[in-house]
Amino acid sequence: MIREKYARLAYHRFPRITSQYLGHQRADTAPPEEGLPDFHPPPLPQEDPYCLDDAPPNLDYLVRMQGGILFVYDNKKMLERQEPHSLPYPDLETYTVDMSHILALITDGPTKTYCHRRLNFLESKFSLHEMLNEMSEFKELKSNPHRDFYNVRKVDTHIHAAACMNQKHLLRFIKHTYQTEPDRIVAEKRGRKITLRQVFDSLHMDPYDLTVDSLDVHAGRQTFHRFDKFNSKYNPVGASELRDLYLKTENYLGGEYFARMVKEVARELEESKYQYSEPRLSIYGRSLEEWPNLAHWFIQHKVYSPNMRWIIQVPRIYDIFRSKKLLPNFGKMLENIFLPLFKATINPQDHRELHLFLKYVTGFDSVDDESKHSDHMFSDKSPSPDVWTSEQNPPYSYYLYYMYANIMVLNNLRRERGLSTFLFRPHCGEAGSITHLVSAFLTADNISHGLLLKKSPVLQYLYYLAQIPIAMSPLSNNSLFLEYSKNPLREFLHKGLHVSLSTDDPMQFHYTKEALMEEYAIAAQVWKLSTCDLCEIARNSVLQSGLSHQEKQKFLGQNYYKEGPEGNDIRKTNVAQIRMAFRYETLCNELSYLSDAMKSEEITALTK
Amino acid sequence: MIREKYARLAYHRFPRITSQYLGHQRADTAPPEEGLPDFHPPPLPQEDPYCLDDAPPNLDYLVRMQGGILFVYDNKKMLERQEPHSLPYPDLETYTVDMSHILALITDGPTKTYCHRRLNFLESKFSLHEMLNEMSEFKELKSNPHRDFYNVRKVDTHIHAAACMNQKHLLRFIKHTYQTEPDRIVAEKRGRKITLRQVFDSLHMDPYDLTVDSLDVHAGRQTFHRFDKFNSKYNPVGASELRDLYLKTENYLGGEYFARMVKEVARELEESKYQYSEPRLSIYGRSLEEWPNLAHWFIQHKVYSPNMRWIIQVPRIYDIFRSKKLLPNFGKMLENIFLPLFKATINPQDHRELHLFLKYVTGFDSVDDESKHSDHMFSDKSPSPDVWTSEQNPPYSYYLYYMYANIMVLNNLRRERGLSTFLFRPHCGEAGSITHLVSAFLTADNISHGLLLKKSPVLQYLYYLAQIPIAMSPLSNNSLFLEYSKNPLREFLHKGLHVSLSTDDPMQFHYTKEALMEEYAIAAQVWKLSTCDLCEIARNSVLQSGLSHQEKQKFLGQNYYKEGPEGNDIRKTNVAQIRMAFRYETLCNELSYLSDAMKSEEITALTK
Repeated sequence: MIREKYARLAYHRFPRITSQYLGHQRADTAPPEEGLPDFHPPPLPQEDPYCLDDAPPNLDYLVRMQGGILFVYDNKKMLERQEPHSLPYPDLETYTVDMSHILALITDGPTKTYCHRRLNFLESKFSLHEMLNEMSEFKELKSNPHRDFYNVRKVDTHIHAAACMNQKHLLRFIKHTYQTEPDRIVAEKRGRKITLRQVFDSLHMDPYDLTVDSLDVHAGRQTFHRFDKFNSKYNPVGASELRDLYLKTENYLGGEYFARMVKEVARELEESKYQYSEPRLSIYGRSLEEWPNLAHWFIQHKVYSPNMRWIIQVPRIYDIFRSKKLLPNFGKMLENIFLPLFKATINPQDHRELHLFLKYVTGFDSVDDESKHSDHMFSDKSPSPDVWTSEQNPPYSYYLYYMYANIMVLNNLRRERGLSTFLFRPHCGEAGSITHLVSAFLTADNISHGLLLKKSPVLQYLYYLAQIPIAMSPLSNNSLFLEYSKNPLREFLHKGLHVSLSTDDPMQFHYTKEALMEEYAIAAQVWKLSTCDLCEIARNSVLQSGLSHQEKQKFLGQNYYKEGPEGNDIRKTNVAQIRMAFRYETLCNELSYLSDAMKSEEITALTK
Repeated sequence: MIREKYARLAYHRFPRITSQYLGHQRADTAPPEEGLPDFHPPPLPQEDPYCLDDAPPNLDYLVRMQGGILFVYDNKKMLERQEPHSLPYPDLETYTVDMSHILALITDGPTKTYCHRRLNFLESKFSLHEMLNEMSEFKELKSNPHRDFYNVRKVDTHIHAAACMNQKHLLRFIKHTYQTEPDRIVAEKRGRKITLRQVFDSLHMDPYDLTVDSLDVHAGRQTFHRFDKFNSKYNPVGASELRDLYLKTENYLGGEYFARMVKEVARELEESKYQYSEPRLSIYGRSLEEWPNLAHWFIQHKVYSPNMRWIIQVPRIYDIFRSKKLLPNFGKMLENIFLPLFKATINPQDHRELHLFLKYVTGFDSVDDESKHSDHMFSDKSPSPDVWTSEQNPPYSYYLYYMYANIMVLNNLRRERGLSTFLFRPHCGEAGSITHLVSAFLTADNISHGLLLKKSPVLQYLYYLAQIPIAMSPLSNNSLFLEYSKNPLREFLHKGLHVSLSTDDPMQFHYTKEALMEEYAIAAQVWKLSTCDLCEIARNSVLQSGLSHQEKQKFLGQNYYKEGPEGNDIRKTNVAQIRMAFRYETLCNELSYLSDAMKSEEITALTK
């Protein structure tokens, strides 16, 4: 019920069936497609994806940040009166109370036992299902015409744009630029213009000799449990100059090289036809200019691709900016991140490029090393962002709350205007404290990683009941936090958690040209997944993604948003109806157990 | 010493260094490139690979089979006198004595303990090497210009031609033929001509609806420990008609479809530039016409590719042919396999097509389910092949001896004429009895699989000392005999056994377009192999392969045939010299231990 409240407020998704068992929704009221997030459908083939003319009129609302959250005022008078526009505004106290409620729940002994047993039961039940129905499922798939694992849609639900090309691709691109334009001016240092040749000269290297070894962007045994070393792998040849030149959107070339590589990756996806991806681009919150610059980069270099939808990642590195005196307080960082979005939503006419770019942005991610410990314990006594001036980094749950709160207000404002909304899809549970998964349980539509659900049966069961999508990247984990064979993906999938497969960083982790296929192939081989398993994961990935309602209908079937077998069109998904029925019945069974228990408790309470 | 004798007789390879420690060869005598097998260099770009004009003159020798082995006579008089041409002829008695010698050795308690300890020592020594030198090795690779894992040569040392395309490729090809030529006559049944459309009509299917699921050629969980089920996966849609039409060299279309697919695979290899493969084509031994037909197929459809070298596989299925009354005895099967080769070697002018085809054939493989048990115990009392008329299949070691013996005679005859020789490269140690690995220890140049070396420390140590190359296919094993995580490849590699990676059957096992890269990627990921490990495996694969001396010099360096670091050219192989030195010193150390022990035993014997 708690999650449902947060989800509804932010236009996140919550399973209808779970809601129903909670007694909140009757199956016969409300059209089933209500409550879906709102994403722009892609432009039609004859439409110009860069058309700047359809910006809706300016509203001239005013926006002010108060306590880390942006408030919208209809006009100056309302601002003076401190009467914000009627949008749901989240409340810090509620959040901290809800957090501690769930925290108490996950450490409660009997609850732990109950959830542990139910999860074991779910796993055994799937084994039984597999033994009994494996051949029937496969028979269903064999008689399904024209659709197999290769031509079902798959979305790479978690991938960083700056590492979306594989190491060989980056290497080839670097060599190519050096061969074709060595004398091009590519940087400026203290007023001196520098050519590409000079960049390499100053690094004492000849790109002809460059190899993937000397490029050294691939994660190896040295990166295990060393997120710091891993982060430095983003620097080709260990040189931050090359990262700036090739992997950034803001540099002397206006991010041209990066855009070209991303577009090459996009072309490959388009050729593959059935693969989509949701690359993360960074907004750091150092200045208000980042958003217009990013939108300009996107449009100037024509980065749009029908096979890509964009997510904005915000690194949790306030402490670094603060220690460099780039920011006065945490509130300013939030303002830099969100204010431009509010302005572009209120006055699209004055922010045409950003308004356009936002059509292709479907969510936010929160990224960084989760294993970094924070001394601060978030509570309603914590300093508010505008007075968070210390050099200490706020804790994970603090970041998540303030990102969620602003996204929520923004979504409601955009919904009012008929504009697309955003999903909050943070990295969560890759490492660090279990409380991260509690924060995300409240605030996230879906998460990336979720490894640590392994350690908390209560949370794992809650993530199951709420069917929270989890984008898992076992190859990434294998290089950083958890050996492949110990990865819980297979177990989660069996139990019925809503998992998808994603690559995270093809540049660092993958060997072949088709990183997502490599990910599926290895999972299939190591865990002996069946075709039905693979297609179920692929279907999950489309559901989880920011692809629009129209696309999902095309890729998964007209009724994809309905739960259970009626939401599945085997001709499009190649997932057996037997499997879908099993999943649905199992979930209903778990939910009815709980609701029966709740009812009998109510009766006991009444008769006492 | 025993293996060395067999190797020398058949022009198989034996490590110079091991030979030296056995006291058989002095480092300063004999040019180092002597004793290499002799393969034709590929035709130059301006040469026609199908030119039939260079057949050497006829010799008019006579050939007769006696006791399962082909004997060559200079003329009729010599035949009458029973004086065969002076070629080394192998001796059944010696073979059975040698076999029992090794069999005694591998079951001897103290020897087992010794080998077990040495192998443990080798493994620990490598761990130590890794801990101390991992970074130095990587540094060496980083400073190695222009060469990395992607552009070192890799040979797929074990792959079956009939499964060399992946499942998606086969599917696409079937659909394509149906789209472009549905009315072509593709088969004849009881005098009635059948079109492609009719083939599919009779199977009640429309190729448009066909998927990889309904094609059903991929191995899944159902094939584990079920080689019989696996073999039936060669039939697309379970229909042997389609196997005949698409995956055979002999059919109404003269094997055109199969040739076209193989050539598509070859084009992909050529484009990749750095990947080579050694596909197996079948000769069954049912009739003498198989060889000329195969050669004709090869030339007619222009199947030659610079990136492929061919191996002939002989399935061990005498029992099936015998029970169908296709063969009177086992000797006839051997005759059908080898007689055409002797004739083409003696009278190339009269067998121009076969003579040409043999230029591109570099070895023989022996294939079938090794887990099938044989009741017969091979000894010098066993019936000779010409009187093996029973319906029972001869045991593995019997097959191996007679194939080896005939290849050996053939190689000597060909060497005399300055023609290329063949390597014997049987499947061995995939399953079944440990004696298979003993037979191959004597008779094989190198083997495929070798999994069961895991179970015999003595044999494993012998395979190490003799540096017998092993083409391993962990993904194939994973579907058939041994889970991926339990595969001994990593352990073998660490100890210093000469292992390479191969795909076996991309159609059944792999998911991506690049099956060999998938194999390397999964091994690298699951076992966290370093770049140096991967490049060492790739170098092993080239050494093990039937690529010519000239190609090996180009791909591995001028002195590739020398052992130890002087045989390694890091600029071509990307294997660190530190690694090569470690391997060489370790092997020398093991050998000197043994030779010292032998000497001290001799001294003890003398002084007694």
